[in-house]
Amino acid sequence: MAEHRRGANLPSLGGFNRTVVLDAVRRSRDGLSRVELAARTGLSPQTVSNVTRFLIDAGMIVESGTVVSGRGKPRTILRLEARSRFAIGVHVDPAVVTYVLLDLVGAVVAETTTSTPNAEDPDQVVRTMAAAVDGLVRRSGVAPDSVLGVGIASPGPIDAAAGVVLDPPFLPRWRDVALRDALGDATGYPVLLEKDVTAAAVGEVFLERGAAARDFAFVYFGTGFGVGLVVDHEPVRGSGANAGDAGHIMIDQGSLAGTADGDGTRGEVGATVMPDRLVRIALERGIALGDGLPDDGVSGAGLPGDGATDDGASGAGLPDDSIAVDLAAVDRAWDALGAAIAAGDPAAQALAAEIGTVMGRAVVVIVNLLDLDRVVFGGPFWSRISATALPAATAAISGSPILVPKHPVTVVESRRGTDVAAVGAACLVLDAALSPRASTMLIAH
Amino acid sequence: MAEHRRGANLPSLGGFNRTVVLDAVRRSRDGLSRVELAARTGLSPQTVSNVTRFLIDAGMIVESGTVVSGRGKPRTILRLEARSRFAIGVHVDPAVVTYVLLDLVGAVVAETTTSTPNAEDPDQVVRTMAAAVDGLVRRSGVAPDSVLGVGIASPGPIDAAAGVVLDPPFLPRWRDVALRDALGDATGYPVLLEKDVTAAAVGEVFLERGAAARDFAFVYFGTGFGVGLVVDHEPVRGSGANAGDAGHIMIDQGSLAGTADGDGTRGEVGATVMPDRLVRIALERGIALGDGLPDDGVSGAGLPGDGATDDGASGAGLPDDSIAVDLAAVDRAWDALGAAIAAGDPAAQALAAEIGTVMGRAVVVIVNLLDLDRVVFGGPFWSRISATALPAATAAISGSPILVPKHPVTVVESRRGTDVAAVGAACLVLDAALSPRASTMLIAH
Repeated sequence: MAEHRRGANLPSLGGFNRTVVLDAVRRSRDGLSRVELAARTGLSPQTVSNVTRFLIDAGMIVESGTVVSGRGKPRTILRLEARSRFAIGVHVDPAVVTYVLLDLVGAVVAETTTSTPNAEDPDQVVRTMAAAVDGLVRRSGVAPDSVLGVGIASPGPIDAAAGVVLDPPFLPRWRDVALRDALGDATGYPVLLEKDVTAAAVGEVFLERGAAARDFAFVYFGTGFGVGLVVDHEPVRGSGANAGDAGHIMIDQGSLAGTADGDGTRGEVGATVMPDRLVRIALERGIALGDGLPDDGVSGAGLPGDGATDDGASGAGLPDDSIAVDLAAVDRAWDALGAAIAAGDPAAQALAAEIGTVMGRAVVVIVNLLDLDRVVFGGPFWSRISATALPAATAAISGSPILVPKHPVTVVESRRGTDVAAVGAACLVLDAALSPRASTMLIAH
Repeated sequence: MAEHRRGANLPSLGGFNRTVVLDAVRRSRDGLSRVELAARTGLSPQTVSNVTRFLIDAGMIVESGTVVSGRGKPRTILRLEARSRFAIGVHVDPAVVTYVLLDLVGAVVAETTTSTPNAEDPDQVVRTMAAAVDGLVRRSGVAPDSVLGVGIASPGPIDAAAGVVLDPPFLPRWRDVALRDALGDATGYPVLLEKDVTAAAVGEVFLERGAAARDFAFVYFGTGFGVGLVVDHEPVRGSGANAGDAGHIMIDQGSLAGTADGDGTRGEVGATVMPDRLVRIALERGIALGDGLPDDGVSGAGLPGDGATDDGASGAGLPDDSIAVDLAAVDRAWDALGAAIAAGDPAAQALAAEIGTVMGRAVVVIVNLLDLDRVVFGGPFWSRISATALPAATAAISGSPILVPKHPVTVVESRRGTDVAAVGAACLVLDAALSPRASTMLIAH
């Protein structure tokens, strides 16, 4: 709050210029010479020389061959040493916890998943997660002190300042979990906590290069419908770091309205595309969702009744404790839906297209509001329907009668699959270490 | 596009540190000593000494008395010289063009309005505007070379890069107007062009201090319904600089639905609150809108028929050329509506409350998406209904069953009245001159 804009003295520029150089080297495909670095960063040759010496000593960049250009003396090429530092990302999802280990350029070195702990005891949950983190580092053969930190992606709402997950859907009877500090104490690593949709957007910024990542929405289809936002290359966190709640946007539900034979009534997009609800619609339409599904897992006790899709209060969030959805059963049914789409089942394909269409209708409202030129779809429930849902979403956006921007809007699927939030959480750590930020410079002493 | 992050060498820091010092002096109520400036900005005493000498020589700050604190020698206090530089703001509205002259601290020195030129000839329109700008400077007695520049706030869509108003509602038969360069040529001043809602938001950031202006929405009720957005102290412009189109957000229209006795059907907020439509509803409800109104000015030829409020294509924009709304007549009727509210007419107050309520419902969607903690209402059609509409909007937001953030959301009326966009346009110029921006530093050489 007592936020003064601070000037930049040389002592604080050391760190800033290091990130400027690291970022430039990272973004170059084939490495850069010191002369190119000076030209590209605007730093003086002397500053580039000092900064690169520091980074070479720290093992983060290496000299890697020389190039001869013209009659000058050969230039030494500098490259990022990808395996010099690492970051861990943890995505806590109601059904599964995903752990990834990324190197300095954002490549996945190792990955593991565990089912989400359902213990009543917070300490035991933290111990389980810390053991998984340590195991990931150990098995990958990475030196523990080369790990920069751990990023956690969690469903919202979170208290970012305090590092607390306020209402963790993965532990329904457990509230106000100080997950950041607890995992920090248990692992010894610095830990960052971010909402899952924001982590996914940060990952997209970090892994994509250049203008593509300037202004976009990351439509995250997980257990809820959320939208991570990036404006002018920066993730939108909002005053409470819980930005991205898009489930209450009202849309024409089309055939996904209250009954299977909907008549175009309007409802909230989040409630319309809850995965458990969509599985029930799929079953009602006779789509085969696999032999392995126990009846009570999907159509019976595991799924809530036909909740009103217009009910504002239930919205895009997770079901109440009292409605115990068997998320693992929903996930298996979703696998089967994906298989049916791939096998060419017309009903399954039609359903996926309708899901893409209603999501696209909600996205248009966001594209209009923020004047976006890019929309990325992803998240654990997106990948399996994307083949059919993405073209439908694209058509719903580009062909919308209420689309305001006159420029083209690019609609793509995230290149990361279901682990996009875990990768994004690790990118939070890399981003903090690698990306030059005015805030770093303005606030540092 | 070829946007490299650039490091900060000392030559480029001169300008950056100047804006850091100017900004700190501007934000202090009673001026600052050099020692306080160093503490507040993080700059070294030597840098503060050099920068302040430059700014004193340029006349932008002045030494203004001394304070004695403790046993040290008295400290000289530095203050911004408010009347050393000026900025002009021009708001081009369909009905009226507003011109303001602001001093360096953002105080309005002079203001004038003209009716919007309706000439067919673009050159004549530009000449009219340039004459008004020159007249404002001349009458206020300000030296022309102390004017930093002119900001124009225009209804969207604009082409910000080219400085072009694409589809100016104030000149229905005139498209792709290169207003920025034309007015620059005609006045000799640097000219900036911005969408009206964004200009209003920039003005709010500039004139409010501190945390209040970090993440908020400026709900701009003009001839259309728009929302200027500020995230992390920066205005959201979007990829085409046309962010802020919120008219297509679907809401429960309540009693403002298709017929006066609405039954809660859903429609787009922009179409629901078009001022000409609301004037017609007011007349249908028997609200007296003044004697001076010719019948054909409001209820007759001047207003369109009962357009479908759910028509996506018409949305929040202005009516087609073919439906010639008499905007001056609507404006006069709005004056009468405001007078009826002030006089205690229950029907007028009920209508204003309904307008505030439906706008509040749309705002909740934006608050959820961006996790905002502040909403500011303003614009030419807001001021006159605010006394009743603001409490209703506040209640609709804070009491919404679908409001996601758990922190309080402050809802206020802009402290600027109907000229908020013109003031904001002038603030664009001041902001460019006064506010330290990482982008300035990162891009400058």
